[in-house]
Amino acid sequence: MAKSRKPRWTKKHLLGLEDMTAGEILTVLDLADAYLPCVTHRRPCPPRLKGRTVLNLFCEDSTRTRTSFTFAAERLGARVFQFHATTSSLNKKESLVDTARNIEAMGLDAIVIRHQERNAPHRLAEAVECSVLSAGDDAHEHPTQALLDMLTIRRKIGRLEGLTLALVGDVRHSRVARSNLFGLSKFGNRVIFVGPQLFLQDLDVKVETSTDFDSVLPECDAVMMLRVQFERHESLAFDIDAYIRGYQLTPARLARARPGAIVLHPGPVNRGIELSNEVADGPQSVILFQTTCGVAVRMAALQLCIGALDRERKAAARKSGKGKRR
Amino acid sequence: MAKSRKPRWTKKHLLGLEDMTAGEILTVLDLADAYLPCVTHRRPCPPRLKGRTVLNLFCEDSTRTRTSFTFAAERLGARVFQFHATTSSLNKKESLVDTARNIEAMGLDAIVIRHQERNAPHRLAEAVECSVLSAGDDAHEHPTQALLDMLTIRRKIGRLEGLTLALVGDVRHSRVARSNLFGLSKFGNRVIFVGPQLFLQDLDVKVETSTDFDSVLPECDAVMMLRVQFERHESLAFDIDAYIRGYQLTPARLARARPGAIVLHPGPVNRGIELSNEVADGPQSVILFQTTCGVAVRMAALQLCIGALDRERKAAARKSGKGKRR
Amino acid sequence: MAKSRKPRWTKKHLLGLEDMTAGEILTVLDLADAYLPCVTHRRPCPPRLKGRTVLNLFCEDSTRTRTSFTFAAERLGARVFQFHATTSSLNKKESLVDTARNIEAMGLDAIVIRHQERNAPHRLAEAVECSVLSAGDDAHEHPTQALLDMLTIRRKIGRLEGLTLALVGDVRHSRVARSNLFGLSKFGNRVIFVGPQLFLQDLDVKVETSTDFDSVLPECDAVMMLRVQFERHESLAFDIDAYIRGYQLTPARLARARPGAIVLHPGPVNRGIELSNEVADGPQSVILFQTTCGVAVRMAALQLCIGALDRERKAAARKSGKGKRR
Repeated sequence: MAKSRKPRWTKKHLLGLEDMTAGEILTVLDLADAYLPCVTHRRPCPPRLKGRTVLNLFCEDSTRTRTSFTFAAERLGARVFQFHATTSSLNKKESLVDTARNIEAMGLDAIVIRHQERNAPHRLAEAVECSVLSAGDDAHEHPTQALLDMLTIRRKIGRLEGLTLALVGDVRHSRVARSNLFGLSKFGNRVIFVGPQLFLQDLDVKVETSTDFDSVLPECDAVMMLRVQFERHESLAFDIDAYIRGYQLTPARLARARPGAIVLHPGPVNRGIELSNEVADGPQSVILFQTTCGVAVRMAALQLCIGALDRERKAAARKSGKGKRR
Repeated sequence: MAKSRKPRWTKKHLLGLEDMTAGEILTVLDLADAYLPCVTHRRPCPPRLKGRTVLNLFCEDSTRTRTSFTFAAERLGARVFQFHATTSSLNKKESLVDTARNIEAMGLDAIVIRHQERNAPHRLAEAVECSVLSAGDDAHEHPTQALLDMLTIRRKIGRLEGLTLALVGDVRHSRVARSNLFGLSKFGNRVIFVGPQLFLQDLDVKVETSTDFDSVLPECDAVMMLRVQFERHESLAFDIDAYIRGYQLTPARLARARPGAIVLHPGPVNRGIELSNEVADGPQSVILFQTTCGVAVRMAALQLCIGALDRERKAAARKSGKGKRR
Repeated sequence: MAKSRKPRWTKKHLLGLEDMTAGEILTVLDLADAYLPCVTHRRPCPPRLKGRTVLNLFCEDSTRTRTSFTFAAERLGARVFQFHATTSSLNKKESLVDTARNIEAMGLDAIVIRHQERNAPHRLAEAVECSVLSAGDDAHEHPTQALLDMLTIRRKIGRLEGLTLALVGDVRHSRVARSNLFGLSKFGNRVIFVGPQLFLQDLDVKVETSTDFDSVLPECDAVMMLRVQFERHESLAFDIDAYIRGYQLTPARLARARPGAIVLHPGPVNRGIELSNEVADGPQSVILFQTTCGVAVRMAALQLCIGALDRERKAAARKSGKGKRR
């Protein structure tokens, strides 16, 4: 699968898209593409990760991403161990590394981590020997989400270059928007962050922005609607009715986009808020296909990272000789 | 296994016994019968559901039924994903379909659902493509429980026709009683609902009833004791002492039944309420064997439903041609 | 693996080290030793427990031990079912046996139980037919923990006889200390319980004790630091600062022990309380290796106990003839 086109994959961790090359991204997407028929039951899955153990270390609630990583790992034959961490105090947070290293000593190949602190996956990656895959850290990165969005776009539109995409909603707090921006920008796409001024101020990334969704739509090949996270906005002066008027994607609004424009959403959808029911369930919505792509992308990511880990382990074993045991 | 006797199984869902034919019920029981030695470790289980994924979507607590479905699916080689739903608001309940369809897009073969609302499994079956098996909906149906009771009866008494059975307790609120009534009636058995008048009024099924347990017992080949669900009766004028006097199955009372009459209970037993310890642990109790039959019945049900789903999927694939992908 | 050296293993339960012979302990350790390369990914695991089902019945929180048993069972090909018991009332506790027997009727090979009551594993073993392995009962025994400590010691020091070991901390409430005392004493080792007088009074085992850690250290080949369990000491007159001064293992203190003395801890470590960071992460710490040994020991224990169960089942099947079914 895509053996000759791209350089060999060498990373044992998947922490973010900002630091990945276009070639690395394509390596994941191509392998994921080959796995799509396994996800949709059209082809059996090869047990490439048979005998492997993956730890799901989720320090924030996440049904979908956790389920998706679990399905992905199990489909390749790996075992998945669910660890429900609670991180109420700084003290507890510090011991997360101890916990992870302890479970690693039981024999782990990869840790999938979601954490409310920026760069927590990176700090974990420094503390353990096995692979670390980020399932989202704070409002920083959510790399597998962006990869699955890119696979969806490539599959549904037919290419991943020269597109114009609007990412709409609370982009300032969105790791999904950030990771997509990092990834899509590497392929010459035009990404526009759209939302009320409240969500566009103090952005720490360089990106085209607009408060006027309607004026942006005519140029859009794809629209990615973000979830309004009510839990974040309780204390803000957030006018939900004004938001719906200005940014809810309705059939009338979608009709302004390019013909055949696709509608993405990372889920779960607030029906009647950022998306109308008609659009959520309409022919331009690719939301369920995103979910399918998510499993395929995570299969690819796990296989590639653990493959790199294996090569590192073998090199270390050669170096230390046969006789030594840890 | 029972290839020629009965018509081919065509249902991808198992939602209730009211709409099943006697032939369909026998198809499940015969296959389950063949699986009993796998459950009791006398024979290895064939991996008929290898590579398949089953979602346990339990919106009410249920240790036993959930465990039984899990054991059944895993024994045939399937993976089981546990989803602990909370359904506090109507809004949440509506999104259950969204959640199920989302996880289905990750590649599901069957959803096992328990839900506090009547016909929730039926509504889910209309919303997804994969198989749906009911693990109980409100006070409506609990089809696999009735099937396991019928397998137990057939195994222990030697036949499933021409028997007299008392179902004793809060039959009005019991999906177990209703599903058993539907199933057992199809084979020419006499089913009597027994309990205080409070539990017999306003029944929405046509069935012989009696408030006099002692007078019914001499005709009984089997007695199925239902669990007194205290949580339902807090606000009612329910006299537990009178209930125990009139309906607890004691050795003295059981001695009035036909020789060799068997005692069933769906569990968990309230010892000292509906069953005395002596009867619960006595030679006529088949309660633990019911549990064993439960795994076998659920193996059979999962295999038959997913088999029908496979045929539907293949037909759909032929129809749409090879080229298309969803 | 150690076929001829020791008598055949005949126990289907593993409940404590007090009643095990030195030969039985060595049987577990030798098999565990052979499994270490499986845990560390240097060799594939043989699927010796394929098709088997293990129930994790944990009535006290335990991330590490539960994870370790799960990894051990799954590595040998078994399925593990997690049961999160709550035991708030005596009534609930009584029904634990009913619950266990019920799940056993679904087809179990082993139950791993942790319980807050002394001898709960023994009582469960009398109530079920399958294997029972204790994962800790009250302040009584924690047999697999002691076995993993002994494997760690044998691997790191090279022998398991003639050693002097200090077990330091709240030994009075420690099932880890008790099981280690029982196990290590069978091989002619000198075990010293060390701690403030508060922890040494009213011991119900016969053992050498000392309140003076510093004077004991020069004779120690191994030091096992126990976790200060703050939840136990809230109401006691426990002076944490005095404890740290007198018993925290610091580099300075460790330098008083024999050269190459190893430092064990059952985890999780209270850094800065019983262990300084330097010692916890230092070259003499074998804490993570203990965790690795834990999986290997539990693999061995599960395999040996289930093997004995199989022989018992076969003998019972021969006795009852082929025709009978339960």
